[in-house]
Amino acid sequence: MPYGTLYLIPVPLAEDTSAKSFTPFLTDTVNSIKEYIVENEKTARRFLREAGLKTPQSELIIHDYSKHNRGTGTGDFFKGLQAGSDVGLMSEAGCPGIADPGAEIVEKAHRMGIKVVPLVGPSSILLALMASGFNGQSFTFHGYLPIDKADRSKRIRELENLSERNDQTQIFIETPFRNNPLLEELLKTAHQKTRLCIACDLTSATEYVQTKTIAEWQKRIPELHKRPAIFLLYHK
Amino acid sequence: MPYGTLYLIPVPLAEDTSAKSFTPFLTDTVNSIKEYIVENEKTARRFLREAGLKTPQSELIIHDYSKHNRGTGTGDFFKGLQAGSDVGLMSEAGCPGIADPGAEIVEKAHRMGIKVVPLVGPSSILLALMASGFNGQSFTFHGYLPIDKADRSKRIRELENLSERNDQTQIFIETPFRNNPLLEELLKTAHQKTRLCIACDLTSATEYVQTKTIAEWQKRIPELHKRPAIFLLYHK
Repeated sequence: MPYGTLYLIPVPLAEDTSAKSFTPFLTDTVNSIKEYIVENEKTARRFLREAGLKTPQSELIIHDYSKHNRGTGTGDFFKGLQAGSDVGLMSEAGCPGIADPGAEIVEKAHRMGIKVVPLVGPSSILLALMASGFNGQSFTFHGYLPIDKADRSKRIRELENLSERNDQTQIFIETPFRNNPLLEELLKTAHQKTRLCIACDLTSATEYVQTKTIAEWQKRIPELHKRPAIFLLYHK
Repeated sequence: MPYGTLYLIPVPLAEDTSAKSFTPFLTDTVNSIKEYIVENEKTARRFLREAGLKTPQSELIIHDYSKHNRGTGTGDFFKGLQAGSDVGLMSEAGCPGIADPGAEIVEKAHRMGIKVVPLVGPSSILLALMASGFNGQSFTFHGYLPIDKADRSKRIRELENLSERNDQTQIFIETPFRNNPLLEELLKTAHQKTRLCIACDLTSATEYVQTKTIAEWQKRIPELHKRPAIFLLYHK
């Protein structure tokens, strides 16, 4: 029997944003699949409801990879696929495998010769890049910057240099409760003329995206505490 | 009067993929806007029809930035926004400003204090990264590699080094009619164990996404001529 397909299913970035997040194909896919590999079972079940799932939740098979990673590995996750069932992969928010640990599931699928199909959906990195006005022909996403203060200011200066040398947008994130200290550090360390885009609460009613020079940001510092944010830096 | 909002509107990557590409919010937005800044007027009008536009096309104001860039600048594009009208920005395919020249329109909007709202939609870079199984916590998009053969193999080796040193996925594209020569070069230049993901015809019926080592690809070379493709390289 041919293997099933692994569908990569993006999840909304914020609550009550279904109309902004889901394509009709995503809803159809969700209704044609009964087995999922997810980062968090509770979030996943709520998401499936929002996405228009008609299958009773009790009929779903859900593998939680954040639990399994701590224990016995992910071998079991692929039995359904090998037996010909289609399976959906979902992370907690945004696109599976982008800034989250789902990539190793996809990697394994490729190794096993399983077909992988990515679905269109929200990615905070991509939305932020699009909305920044910075160079989208060359960009790097770095994930998190170092926590140590000295390392972090060194890293900020490195990112400025990379941006200037390669005409490249530098993108990074921070744990939401550390956003304010990171911004403070950026305003202290980066050049006055470096441009910084802050994109936060993307797709939600409180969405905020602004691009300014460091000098301009210093005049009016936004409150970012506990708001999911993406930072983009561009120096040329 | 307050300024209008600049909506960044992604466009499908392939024909007949509306259900895979559009969110209900995108269709609503398109129906609430009468003025557009676009990369290609003809493509844009076709897209708006597919996206469920109800406004008669004759009532639309369309600014073509690929024409204007060659001539008189983009000053006129912002008059509607300054007078309070919402305006949509669209590229030929995918997300405006990502691997296309729309970014300068967004940059100017920020400078003028105009609100920018990015919409969820298809990005071949992001879909390919998600489906590659490579590191999505650190990645660089480089755009095109050099055309000159010697420069190109040098660049491929640089990308391998970058990937190894930074544990970072390296993403690049090529003009579709040059895909086959690029793949040949990759198979000749890169290490046997380097992994290469080829993602082509994304979202369309002929979609193809596979990740293999260079050694595996050498055994069976896919035909990529004139198919829109994304290449991802990962070496660790």
